Amino acid sequence: MTLAEKPAPDAVTAGRNAADHLWMHFARMGRYAEKPAPVITRGEGAYIYDDRGRRILDGLSGLFVVQVGHGRRELAEAAARQAETLAYFPVWGYAHPPAIQLAERVADLAPGDLDRVFFTSGGGEAVESAWKVAKQYFKLLGKPTKHKVISRMTAYHGTTQGALSITGVPAMKQDFEPLTPGGFRAANTNIYRATQHADDAEAFGRWAADRIEEAILFEGPATVAAVVIEPVQNSGGCFTAPRSYFARVREICDRHDVLLVADEVITGFGRHGAAFASAKFGLQPDIITCAKGLTSGYSPLGAMIASERVIEPFLADKVAFPHGYTFGGHPVSAAVGLANLDIMEREGLYQRVLDNEDGFRATLDRLRDLPIVGDVRGDGYFWAVELVTDSATKAVLDADQRERLVRGFLPSALFEAGLYCRPDDRGEAVVQLAPPLICGQAEFDEIEQILRGVLTEAWSLL
Amino acid sequence: MTLAEKPAPDAVTAGRNAADHLWMHFARMGRYAEKPAPVITRGEGAYIYDDRGRRILDGLSGLFVVQVGHGRRELAEAAARQAETLAYFPVWGYAHPPAIQLAERVADLAPGDLDRVFFTSGGGEAVESAWKVAKQYFKLLGKPTKHKVISRMTAYHGTTQGALSITGVPAMKQDFEPLTPGGFRAANTNIYRATQHADDAEAFGRWAADRIEEAILFEGPATVAAVVIEPVQNSGGCFTAPRSYFARVREICDRHDVLLVADEVITGFGRHGAAFASAKFGLQPDIITCAKGLTSGYSPLGAMIASERVIEPFLADKVAFPHGYTFGGHPVSAAVGLANLDIMEREGLYQRVLDNEDGFRATLDRLRDLPIVGDVRGDGYFWAVELVTDSATKAVLDADQRERLVRGFLPSALFEAGLYCRPDDRGEAVVQLAPPLICGQAEFDEIEQILRGVLTEAWSLL
Repeated sequence: MTLAEKPAPDAVTAGRNAADHLWMHFARMGRYAEKPAPVITRGEGAYIYDDRGRRILDGLSGLFVVQVGHGRRELAEAAARQAETLAYFPVWGYAHPPAIQLAERVADLAPGDLDRVFFTSGGGEAVESAWKVAKQYFKLLGKPTKHKVISRMTAYHGTTQGALSITGVPAMKQDFEPLTPGGFRAANTNIYRATQHADDAEAFGRWAADRIEEAILFEGPATVAAVVIEPVQNSGGCFTAPRSYFARVREICDRHDVLLVADEVITGFGRHGAAFASAKFGLQPDIITCAKGLTSGYSPLGAMIASERVIEPFLADKVAFPHGYTFGGHPVSAAVGLANLDIMEREGLYQRVLDNEDGFRATLDRLRDLPIVGDVRGDGYFWAVELVTDSATKAVLDADQRERLVRGFLPSALFEAGLYCRPDDRGEAVVQLAPPLICGQAEFDEIEQILRGVLTEAWSLL
Repeated sequence: MTLAEKPAPDAVTAGRNAADHLWMHFARMGRYAEKPAPVITRGEGAYIYDDRGRRILDGLSGLFVVQVGHGRRELAEAAARQAETLAYFPVWGYAHPPAIQLAERVADLAPGDLDRVFFTSGGGEAVESAWKVAKQYFKLLGKPTKHKVISRMTAYHGTTQGALSITGVPAMKQDFEPLTPGGFRAANTNIYRATQHADDAEAFGRWAADRIEEAILFEGPATVAAVVIEPVQNSGGCFTAPRSYFARVREICDRHDVLLVADEVITGFGRHGAAFASAKFGLQPDIITCAKGLTSGYSPLGAMIASERVIEPFLADKVAFPHGYTFGGHPVSAAVGLANLDIMEREGLYQRVLDNEDGFRATLDRLRDLPIVGDVRGDGYFWAVELVTDSATKAVLDADQRERLVRGFLPSALFEAGLYCRPDDRGEAVVQLAPPLICGQAEFDEIEQILRGVLTEAWSLL
C-alpha cells in the first residue's frame, strides 16, 4: 500500500461513525457495522474524492443534480452574499427579490404559458403540490369528483405519502400502505421489453399512450384529475418515448379534461440539452415539476410551474391554495438558482449536451459487445445500461443474481474502480449514468472503460 | 412624504411583479393585482427591511426559524466554505463529513437514547418520515395492522399528503381529501377554553391525555402506530400542557404499544430555552421531528431522530427503510447547522431564553388591559395573544370579524407599524410571536407597544 492509498486513521473513524448516528437513506443500515459507508469529502468539476483520498468520477451528478459540476466558487459566493443579506424569509404572502427574480426567470424558460412558479424545497414536494393543485383546481371548477392521478409503472415521483402514491414501485410502497388514495398505474414506455409494436417506435408510442387512456376509463374520467409522466422515465432505466406518445397523451388528457403534469425533476435544466425536456420531445404539459438541476444542488430548491389555465380559478376573490412549505423558495436557494442558470447560459451547457449526446450514446453503445449488456438507452446526458443473463433472449437477472450483483458487487466494485453511478433494480437490473453537463468525450471514455472492466467481472459472477 | 419614506420606482415594480410569476404560499393570489405583496430585501439581527426601506421587527423569526437572528456572516461563510468543498452529495448509502458530524451532535443533544438521525429537507418531510418509520417498524415486529396516527385538533404538522393527514386543521385539508388514511384526532390542551377542569391544570392535563387514549381505543390499539404531539402546540395559539399531561400520554402509549412522536419543528433548538422542549416539559418521545431552528433557516434542513428501540428492527440483515430525499442532509445545510449550533452554544442563547421568558411573559401580560385581549399564553420565546370580543365571556370573533381583522386589517397594520408577526385563525383568532432568541426586554417592549396601538385600533373596527 502506497502512502497515498493509506487511509488516515481519523478518516476511517469517520466512515465507521457515519452509521452510528446518521441514518442513511434507502440503506440497509445493518451492513455498516462491518463495512463502513463510503464517505465523500470533496468535489471538483466532474470528480468527487473520498476520505481515503481516492478520486472518483461522479457519473450520476450526485443524484442527477450537479449539472455544472462540483466546487463552483461562483455559486458558493452567491449563497454567501444572499445569506448575509437575507438568509431566510418565507414566501407565505410575502416576497423577496431572489424568489421574485427566479420565478420570472423560470417562467421565461418554461414552455407555453406555464408562468406561475410555486417554489418548494425539492422534487417530492413539487409533485405533492401538483397533485394538490389539481385536486383543488377541479373543485373550484365545480368538478369535485376529479381527484385521481394516473402515473406509470416503475416510475419514481417521491417518497412523501402523496408523491409515493404516484410512484409506481410497489416494493417502495408496500410497507407504508395505505397511502393517499387515488394513485393508479398504466404501462410505461419500455420498448426494449415491449410485447407488441417492438419494431415500430411510433406505433408502440400510440399503444402506450392508449394504456393511459385505458387507465382513465377504468377509473372514470369524472374521477381523474391528472396524468403525471416524466419526459424520460428514470426508474426502470431511462425509458424514452416517441413523439407520437406525447402528442397522443396530450389529446387523451384534453379529451377527458385531465391535467397533464410533466415531472421534470431529473430531466429539467440541461439534462437533455434544454431548460425543460418537454419542449425537446413534444410534450405539452399543464404543470411542470422540477428541482435538482435548478440549483445544481448547491442549495435545496424545487418548483411546481403552472399554466395560466391552472392558476386562473385561484385568482378569484378570497380564493387561496392553502398549501406551502417553510423552506420553499428559500432566499439562498433562489439566489443560487439564479447564479446557476447564469453559468449554464454563459457556458452554453444546454448546447454542449446537444453537441455531445450522440458521442455519449456511441461510446456507451460499445458496451453492447459484452454478454451481460442487454440494452443501452437514454437521451442527452441520461443513460441506462440494462443487464441481462442472455442478450439474445433478454433474460433477466433472477432475485439472487440481483441481490448479489445490483446490491452487492456492483456499487462497491464500480466505486473502487473510480466510478460513482447507480446500479438499480426497481425495474429490471440497470446501471444508470447522468454525469455533470461539463463532461465530454474524455469522461465518456473513462465511464465506458470502467464499466467494461466491472461488467466483465460481473458476468463471471452471475 | 420624506425622502426616506419615498419608494424607489424599481422597488415598487418588484413588488408588483412578485405576483406575476411567484405563486406565494397560503396566499390569496388575486389580491396582489391591486396591492403588491410586501417585499423583504434584507435582515439584520432582529430586524428585517422592505423594498421601501422600512425597518420592521421580525417578531416571528421569519417563520419560527431564525433563532440566531438575521445577517450572520459566520453562517454565510460556513455555507460558502462547504459549497466550495462539497456542495452536494446524497446520503443514500453514502455519507459526508457534515452530515456525520451533525448527526452526532444532534444525537448528543437529543434526550434519552434518541440517537439515530434521519435527515430531511424540512419539517413536513420529517413528519412523513416519522409516520413511515412507525408503519414499517410495526410490520417488522410482526404487527402489520398498526399504521394509524393520533394527533390533536387544530395542530399543524405539514402539508404533504401524509403530514397533512396528521394535521388537525380541516380547512387546510378539505380541498385535498382523500388524504393518506389513518390520521385521527383527539382534543388538544386548550385550557383557556376548557369545558372542564379549567381551574386545575394538572387535572385538565390528565383529562386531555385521556382523550388520546380514547382515540386509540376508538380505533383499536392493534391499528394505531403513533401519537404525534408538539410540546407546545403552535396552531390554535401556543397551547402548553402541564407535566401530568405528558407523563400520562407516555403511559398511554406504553400501555397500547404505540410510538410517541414529539414534533419539535417549532419548539426545538432554543425556542423554549433547550435544545429540545420535550426535556423541559417532561415529554419522553420515541421519535423527535425537527427542522427550522436547526440551521436558523440559513439553509433548508430537517431531521427525524429515532431511539435505539425504533431503529433496532431496521438493523437486521437485508432490511432497509426504503425512504429518502434528494436534499435530506444536504452538505451545506449540515455545515450551516453545525455553525448555527456553535453560535447558540457560544452565545448561551438557550440560557438567554430561560433568563428572559418571564420578562417576555410579563411584558405581554400588560396587554390584558385591552378589551380585545382574551388570553396571553406560551412559553420561552413563543407566545400567543388571543383576541375576543368580550374578555369576560371569552366571546370569539365571528367569521366576518375574522375576515376583516385577521386576514384584512391586522397583517398590514402591524407591518406598517413596524412589527412582523402572525395573526392567525386556524383555531380562534390569535396573534403569534416568536422573535429571534437574541431579543431581550427592549424588543419585548417594542412588540408590546406596537401591539397595543394596533390592537386598540382593531377593537374600534370590530
